[in-house]
Amino acid sequence: MASVEVTNLANELRKDFPIFADIRNSRPFYYLDSAASSQRPMSVLDTMDRYYRHSHANVHRGVYGLAEEATGIYEAARRHLGRFIGARDPAHEIVFTKNATEALNLVAQGLGRVLLKPESHILLTEMEHHANLVPWMILQEQIGFSIDYLPFDAEGLLVLENLDALLERADILGVTLMSNVLGTLNPVSMLSRKAHEHGALVVADGAQFVPHFQTDVDQLGVDCLAITGHKMLAPTGIGALWARSEILEAMQPFLGGGEMISDVRLDGFTPNEIPHKFEAGTPPIAEAAGWDAALDYLETVGMEAISNHDRALTSYAISQLQDRLDERIKIFGPSDITKRGGVLSFELADVHPHDVAQVLDQHGVCVRAGHHCAKPLMRELGVGATARASFYLYNDEADVDALVEALLDAYRMFHS
Amino acid sequence: MASVEVTNLANELRKDFPIFADIRNSRPFYYLDSAASSQRPMSVLDTMDRYYRHSHANVHRGVYGLAEEATGIYEAARRHLGRFIGARDPAHEIVFTKNATEALNLVAQGLGRVLLKPESHILLTEMEHHANLVPWMILQEQIGFSIDYLPFDAEGLLVLENLDALLERADILGVTLMSNVLGTLNPVSMLSRKAHEHGALVVADGAQFVPHFQTDVDQLGVDCLAITGHKMLAPTGIGALWARSEILEAMQPFLGGGEMISDVRLDGFTPNEIPHKFEAGTPPIAEAAGWDAALDYLETVGMEAISNHDRALTSYAISQLQDRLDERIKIFGPSDITKRGGVLSFELADVHPHDVAQVLDQHGVCVRAGHHCAKPLMRELGVGATARASFYLYNDEADVDALVEALLDAYRMFHS
Repeated sequence: MASVEVTNLANELRKDFPIFADIRNSRPFYYLDSAASSQRPMSVLDTMDRYYRHSHANVHRGVYGLAEEATGIYEAARRHLGRFIGARDPAHEIVFTKNATEALNLVAQGLGRVLLKPESHILLTEMEHHANLVPWMILQEQIGFSIDYLPFDAEGLLVLENLDALLERADILGVTLMSNVLGTLNPVSMLSRKAHEHGALVVADGAQFVPHFQTDVDQLGVDCLAITGHKMLAPTGIGALWARSEILEAMQPFLGGGEMISDVRLDGFTPNEIPHKFEAGTPPIAEAAGWDAALDYLETVGMEAISNHDRALTSYAISQLQDRLDERIKIFGPSDITKRGGVLSFELADVHPHDVAQVLDQHGVCVRAGHHCAKPLMRELGVGATARASFYLYNDEADVDALVEALLDAYRMFHS
Repeated sequence: MASVEVTNLANELRKDFPIFADIRNSRPFYYLDSAASSQRPMSVLDTMDRYYRHSHANVHRGVYGLAEEATGIYEAARRHLGRFIGARDPAHEIVFTKNATEALNLVAQGLGRVLLKPESHILLTEMEHHANLVPWMILQEQIGFSIDYLPFDAEGLLVLENLDALLERADILGVTLMSNVLGTLNPVSMLSRKAHEHGALVVADGAQFVPHFQTDVDQLGVDCLAITGHKMLAPTGIGALWARSEILEAMQPFLGGGEMISDVRLDGFTPNEIPHKFEAGTPPIAEAAGWDAALDYLETVGMEAISNHDRALTSYAISQLQDRLDERIKIFGPSDITKRGGVLSFELADVHPHDVAQVLDQHGVCVRAGHHCAKPLMRELGVGATARASFYLYNDEADVDALVEALLDAYRMFHS
């Protein structure tokens, strides 16, 4: 565990993120909530600003130079994101959406409506975020089919005993690459192989994973992948769906409107080519430009350096929390550090997670508390809420130390 | 017609929009495409920048100060937009979407699924943008119902002869407040009154109207209104649906995911309160902050000053085009200037609109050419495409003069 490197990486990078300097001038600030949303480097803000100041026009439909320039910027971002996750056809396999949630709704409605009948089954996991649960439930109400669930064990690992039997009857497997509560990294390459053996397609939620790990959709073997920008240094207001081009071709349009058609008559419409047939109306253009710059930033740092950094910091945090808080804290998720990402949910003995988060806030330590949009998972854990700290490339041991001190204070406060 | 005032307003305001100074330093730049997307004042860019540098965290689910600050900014933007259009309950009647198109899809799926049966009818107009056509066609394919259309006449005005008969059998009337091709301002207050007499609800597309005219949903009498940010000085990546709270209450959820639920179990979910039940996943937070600043800017200038300015400039443009180009140009839409907004579609004799736009681009004049996402309307006009100039608060007579000179040049070029 190279804790010196942890500090060095974060120290070097943090000066690129203006929010740390700006807030730290006035108060303590330990941002441990990147799993909810990351902060942005100056290069991303500058890129968006430059876009609006020099290049803005609506895309695709303009024949003047400025509109072509805006279109070029937007389409370059699409190809960059495609390359970033190893898409074979980057120009056609990325659909920009408003967030990962819209991407998963697009899959449910666009693919689910083509594949599923009332007698069909799909397989989800009990650790899915609501974004990979509720879209399927909405579709289920509309067309009817059954949803099976893969459970997880006390370590937060998927229980795969019945996998083959469940996949045998499933048309779709929906699985998160990384749990936003437990941090669990699911064995998705193996799951995809198994799913394909049984003729099921794999819809992966990459919202937590893609910002932190080198992602290769070919290696993962998934068919669809939902991604979001704001958790990976990019602006709010943009996400994406990647899917293999033949999947996108087979999918029905979801949102209707301008851009997604090749013709509209009073009696019906003909959809546009992929990926445009899924992008109705004016897209998040400046946000795509910002995401492009965020990808540049991540590539310059290197995804391997980032995941190593996350892991070292998570390891440091677990050992510090266990050493200093001992039986007063319960940490959820895998004890094997190689099976988890930089997300740490915990329970402080006899203190409600919201109270924990509030006391931490007084120390300038920002953690999330609640159900983390994963209520079935919380029910399975037997808790109503957890507090959750999450790490990214700008965090270091000082953040962890502040967390530990603040937790000790919270414990004392509620046990005095 | 106060043409001196036109120049003064634009001259004064244009310096607030950095793109004009930045591009004009290097080349001529006459931006006449605000109906596709407007430019942004510095205050909007500064507000977004400040948000990312000082206040960013994910909204609604955080218990620490920064997340509460971000939530406060986001919810303040919602209330501001609600007040801007005269909503009775601004905190609950605005749903943020990614664009106006998503807002109309939300109405089609959320309201249409509740109201419509296979034997139902809805009434649209032949001048609707694809955004108010295709979402209904998609729903029609899913649940079946009939779509009737209100035609328009040679002046670009709706033909209302059969209105009562058509409304009699309609559950929903979908109508644009202002045509993005013809500029026509539809008599929506009257249409709403008639629709309500016949028990039909009114879904209005406000994408073109709201940026240019004082909007009061009560006075218009509509039940739902789709709006977009990027045509009214706000960032890309954000739009909104306004609907009366009882309509929102009755609507089904559309996108499923985090935030839009109050509970999720493995066997189903319970939706959140309005407006949150329609906002799944991380919303466009920085974009909402930017829209808030854009509303400030528009209010400071004054919506009446803006619509007067648009009208004066449109009137000047029509007279200049007719005087200088005479029978060589055909202008579409109402000849009565009080019945149109600042959008001017035209045909230059025997020159394809794309060729027109390209020659204009060489003069630095940015106009759009194509079907303007209104193919049924184009078919009704008997053309495949038009060129379209559109005006906003930063345009003045110099833009119109440049347009006229460039059109004369284009005409000479293709008739020599």
